[in-house]
Order: sequence, then C-alpha cells, then structure tokens
Amino acid sequence: MNQATIALSINAAARREADEPHSLVAPIAAPLALESGSALHGLRIAYQTYGTLNAEKTNAVLVCHALTGDQHVANVHPVTGKLGWWSTMIGPGKPVDTDRFFVICSNVVGGCMGTTGPASTNPETGEPYGLDLPLVTIRDMVDAQAALIDHLGIESLFCVIGGSMGGMQVLQWAARHPDRVFSALPIATAHRHSAQNIAFNEVGRQAITADPDWREGRYLTEGATPRKGLAVARMAAHITYLSEPALQTKFGRSLQDREAHSFGFDADFQIESYLRHQGASFVERFDANSYLYVTRAMDYFDLAADQGGSLASAFRGTKTRFCVVSFTSDWLFPTEGSRQVVHALNAAAANVSFVEIATDKGHDAFLLDVPELFATTKGFLDAAAKVRGLTD
Amino acid sequence: MNQATIALSINAAARREADEPHSLVAPIAAPLALESGSALHGLRIAYQTYGTLNAEKTNAVLVCHALTGDQHVANVHPVTGKLGWWSTMIGPGKPVDTDRFFVICSNVVGGCMGTTGPASTNPETGEPYGLDLPLVTIRDMVDAQAALIDHLGIESLFCVIGGSMGGMQVLQWAARHPDRVFSALPIATAHRHSAQNIAFNEVGRQAITADPDWREGRYLTEGATPRKGLAVARMAAHITYLSEPALQTKFGRSLQDREAHSFGFDADFQIESYLRHQGASFVERFDANSYLYVTRAMDYFDLAADQGGSLASAFRGTKTRFCVVSFTSDWLFPTEGSRQVVHALNAAAANVSFVEIATDKGHDAFLLDVPELFATTKGFLDAAAKVRGLTD
Repeated sequence: MNQATIALSINAAARREADEPHSLVAPIAAPLALESGSALHGLRIAYQTYGTLNAEKTNAVLVCHALTGDQHVANVHPVTGKLGWWSTMIGPGKPVDTDRFFVICSNVVGGCMGTTGPASTNPETGEPYGLDLPLVTIRDMVDAQAALIDHLGIESLFCVIGGSMGGMQVLQWAARHPDRVFSALPIATAHRHSAQNIAFNEVGRQAITADPDWREGRYLTEGATPRKGLAVARMAAHITYLSEPALQTKFGRSLQDREAHSFGFDADFQIESYLRHQGASFVERFDANSYLYVTRAMDYFDLAADQGGSLASAFRGTKTRFCVVSFTSDWLFPTEGSRQVVHALNAAAANVSFVEIATDKGHDAFLLDVPELFATTKGFLDAAAKVRGLTD
Repeated sequence: MNQATIALSINAAARREADEPHSLVAPIAAPLALESGSALHGLRIAYQTYGTLNAEKTNAVLVCHALTGDQHVANVHPVTGKLGWWSTMIGPGKPVDTDRFFVICSNVVGGCMGTTGPASTNPETGEPYGLDLPLVTIRDMVDAQAALIDHLGIESLFCVIGGSMGGMQVLQWAARHPDRVFSALPIATAHRHSAQNIAFNEVGRQAITADPDWREGRYLTEGATPRKGLAVARMAAHITYLSEPALQTKFGRSLQDREAHSFGFDADFQIESYLRHQGASFVERFDANSYLYVTRAMDYFDLAADQGGSLASAFRGTKTRFCVVSFTSDWLFPTEGSRQVVHALNAAAANVSFVEIATDKGHDAFLLDVPELFATTKGFLDAAAKVRGLTD
C-alpha cells in the first residue's frame, strides 16, 4: 500500500457532513470525557489534511489553530475565499513542507467550522446546543484531537505546532500525551492566561451577551444574530493582536477618505475604518457562542495549576523535543511567558531551544510574513526529522 | 476687602442650577466659538472652588479633569458619595495646598456634571441636545475654562494642572493662552492621541452605539439608557488604565467567591468581577453621549498638527514654567509621549523639568497614592510660588 493509497483510504473513511461540506469529518463513537466532569456524546471533528501519511505513519504534523482560526490552514477558506491562515507556513516546499509531512488541522471542539460546538445540533433536542453544550477546555480540545489521531490510525505525531491558543494546545499535548508527541513548537503563547488577557476576553463576552440579539444564547433557534456585540468583541481583541508601534506606523493619525476632521462620529481616522471592517467581516464567519466558549477555554488554561503549581512537573521525564518561539512586540503573550515555559522545560531536563524574534508586528506576527519564524520552524523540523529517521 | 470676602462674592455671583445643585454654575453670555466653526450659545459651566483667592488674584490653580472625571476634585462626590478624585492631591496642607492656593475645577464642555453637554437642554428645542450638540475639542474645553476664568475676574492663573485628558488641556492652555499660565503641570499625557488610543476609544463608542437603548443618541428623550453598551465601553477602557504587572499582582488568576471553576460564564475570576463592577458603577454617574463627545475630543487632539506639524512652534516664546510627569508602567500615555513634549519645550527654550516616576500602577498612577508624584507637585509649586512672589 503506497502513501497515496493510505491517504486516500483515510479520506474515504471520513464522512463529509452537510453542514461542513468543505472539510473531512471524523465521527467519534466514544463519549469525550470533559474536564468539567461532563461527557460529550456524538462528537464530530472537522479537519483538513495536506500531503501524504508515510507507510510508517511517522510524518504527521498536527497544527493547532488559535481562537478565531479553523482547520482551513493551507487551502482557500470556503467562507472568506481567502488563502488559509497559515498558507505561508504550510505547503509544498514551505517550512512545514507537505512534500515531506502529512499535515492535519482540525477545528477545535467548541468551534464553529464543523466540529461539535454550541451552534451544532444537540441530538437530545434537535435544536442548536447554544449554552447547553458543556464548557470545554484546552485539555478537552487536545483530547478531541487525540481521538481524531486515533481515528486516523496514527500512534505518534512527528510534531504538534501552533501559535497563541494553538500554542496552549501544543503545551497541553506535550504534557498530557508525551509519548505521542515527538516534537513540539509552541509559538507566541503561555502556560496560563494572564489577568489582563482574561480581562480582555471578559470584555468581549460582555459585548456579546449585552447584545439583545444574543437572546440568552438561543439566537440560532430564534432566528437572530448578535452581530453588533460580536463585532465589538472582535474590535477590542484585534487591538491586542497588534503592537502600538505597528499601529502608529501603519495608521498613525491618518484620515480615511477625507482631508479634514468631520467633527462627528464617522470613521474619520484610518484606524477606525480598519477596526470597523475587522468587526464587520468577522461576524460573517464566526459564531458568537463559540466566541464565548473558546475564550473561556483560554481563561481556564493553567498547566501549572493542574500540577499543583509546578509547571516543570507537567513535563517531567518528557522525551519530546521543544522549540519555543516568542516575538519582542507581542504584549498579549509577552516573551516573559515563553521564558517561563523554557525555564520549566529546563528544570524538567527537556530538549528545548528558545527563539525570541525581533519584530514590531505584535502578537499577529505568528500569522504574518516573518522570515525568521519560517527559518526557525524549518530548521527545527529538519533537525527533528533527521532524529526521527525521516528521509528528505 | 479681605480674601474671604472676595471668595464669597465670587460664590454669590455664581448661580446654582436645579440640575446641578452641588456645584457653582457660571453662565457665559457670549457664544463660544468652537473649533468646528459652530458656536455654542447659552454655555453654562459647573465648577467647584477650594481655598481663597488672594487680593492680587495671583494664587489661582486650575485643575483640569480627565475623560470620566468631573469638577468634584476634592469634595465628597454628590452622586457616588466617595471622596473627590484628587482628594489626595488637593486640600489643606496637601501638595496643591488650599491654605495657599485658590483651586478651581470645572466640568468640561461636553461633560455631564452640570456644564453644557449632550444631556443638557437644547434651548432651541427644549429637549436634550443629544447628537445635536456641536462636537467640541480640547481647545473648546480650554476656551470654555478661559471664559470661566474671565467670569471669576482672574487674569492669570498661577498654575494649570491635570493628568491624562486633563494634561492635554494643560498643554492646550499653555499653547493658546501663554500669558495667562504662569506654570503648567501636565501629567501622564501627550500632545496628540496615538492610533492605539483612538482604537480603544472607537471600541468604546461602538459598544455604546451598538446598544439599541442608545436610540441613535435620543435615549434621554425616549426614556431609555444604553447601560450595557456604556458598561462595556468602560470595561474596555479600564483595562488600559492599569498595567499588566499590577493586574497580575492584584488579581492574577484568583477566583472570586469560589474554590473551583464554575465551568460556565459567571465571573469566576476576581478580575472579571472587578471589571463588571467598574462597568456597572460607571453607568450610574456618566452619560453615554458625553462619553462619545469627550473621547472624540481626545482623538482630535494634536497640538503639533495645529502648528503645521511643529510642536515646538506651539510653545514659541513661552514664559510659562513647565513640569512634565510620566509613569514607567503607563502604556496608554507612555513616557515617550511626555519626552516628545519635553523635547519640543526645550526646542522652544522653555523653562521645563521632567520627572518619570517608577511605579507599576499604570496610567491610573496619577490618581493614586504615589508619594513621588505628591513630592514633585509640591516642590514644583513651591518653587514657582516663590518666583511668583506668593508668600507661604
């Protein structure tokens, strides 16, 4: 059975759902035991793959997406029509080279692009879950991905990689399933959410739930959409993804389509026009309740608390090879947070390298054209592949 | 006529209005020519005074308040029942010593504590102005204050002092009325609003105008209040007033009134509970349309643009004595902005000192118990008073 045939059989086994015709969907038969103590029945995981799984099933790379990302990492997005969010990073000849690696990216549980989330149909009622979906955590996201990996017949991942909330999943994978993670690349992330980040998430949630069209979470059943609240949430969050110097350089105090102030409340400034556009386009592709669920998962993430306060304990005895990456101008997930992860890995005698990349692009740098990020990723994967015995 | 009599006669001249019975109110007969080109007729300015104006009228200190501040700077606030926002700074024996100085603080035009603002009655319609009030700028706020100072018969202010948007007014006073400002103390401010700060203001405005109870600005006429939108605006802004380290120290990931996560959307974390409280209490004392107007005034502020891009030109030939103060952990008005002001003042050969105070309290430091701020203020005022010939 050659590699192409294996990939084909995997694809054939996956079912395409009516509500997510653009992705493969893996139905997970066993209930997912959630961190809250609840269980999620009838879990379905929407995912994309790129490249070909080798015969030994040793070349799989799992990409974990961030808060508002999804599985469409390196293909044209079915809703926006834009290139996938990491098309610069993943593809033939790219740093995560799909000529060598079999790349998997799944929508997180709680998401809204085909994996079970609050907008999915609750089998018990035949209506959308809304807030009846049990709360999910980063650990639950990772356990759902592990079920997908089982479904694909893969025992051990060559690499788990992701930025921001994706990086939280990377750390959680390495801590929870150490034997299934050969290498790990957490980018622009932290082992726990800071008070300031919880605060920004809470503002977003308050903006959504303040919208009367949220209907106490039942908007889908009632035919409404909390567009304005979700747009405000996105606008507030979007500021945190950029750096102050980058905003100053890109927008400064430049006016939008006018020569002078309007002395009113139009979007006089380019930065206002830009933010309004970010809010308006976001509501076309994202579910408001998913925003509540996924931000809450980030708030709850604290890998040290899970280990009685010792982050090093989370990684004790790990054989995983780590590369930790941060960006100098990232104030949402500052370098200090990455450094804490590196210190813990060192304390656990792990194999770890750490790269802080100088850039003014802020937190969003992990999504942007940052050559040093590409070079770091390629170098780390190439070296790990050699150790894993993967041929070029 | 002794000092007490003069103060009394000023107070007697001022009219107390039914809608602001706790403050003095100065009716300004002449229309205020606004920067937009409009004119504001029937302007009324609500203000407080502390201490006694000396016979020479040379000991008056004008305090300029910030975005959500008001004239109740050193007395119990009539709405909240709390001590005035700068009670630590102003009073007998305090850094701004009311045993020596006659302190004036007026509510800004566009505000909502008695000075003409969007909630005031439009004399043309008999209804609240709402968005029919012409837009006002920092320059307009200062010109309104100048009219009040005229009304009080004061030719030259001994000092103009304020933080944040109050500091913008201080700079505008020094630039626009240099002969009327003997000394100036701008704190935690900048000569223009940054792209990031405009962005945060825009999020707040979008939150307010997204609230259906805003009613396109006519909520007062229609008996509604956009409480939820205004609360979200306040919550988002409040994060920017604090520093990340202070949030981490004060709240971290501590839970509120519980031992474990609720796995829901209650305010599990103390930071969430704190923010919700900030939002809820703010709407009890502030008008949503005023929030739109006053944030817009901050966005428009650019003292260099008014001078063809040269900030130094704004201060050319000034005889005012300046003391510029910034705080290390203030990321809303970082030290860099204060440094730009100092460089411009140096280029204008002004008399200027500059103090950057080390603190983790963030932007809010100007309102808090920061001994170095008190010492700096007292030292600067004492030295300036000596030059002015004011006796102790």
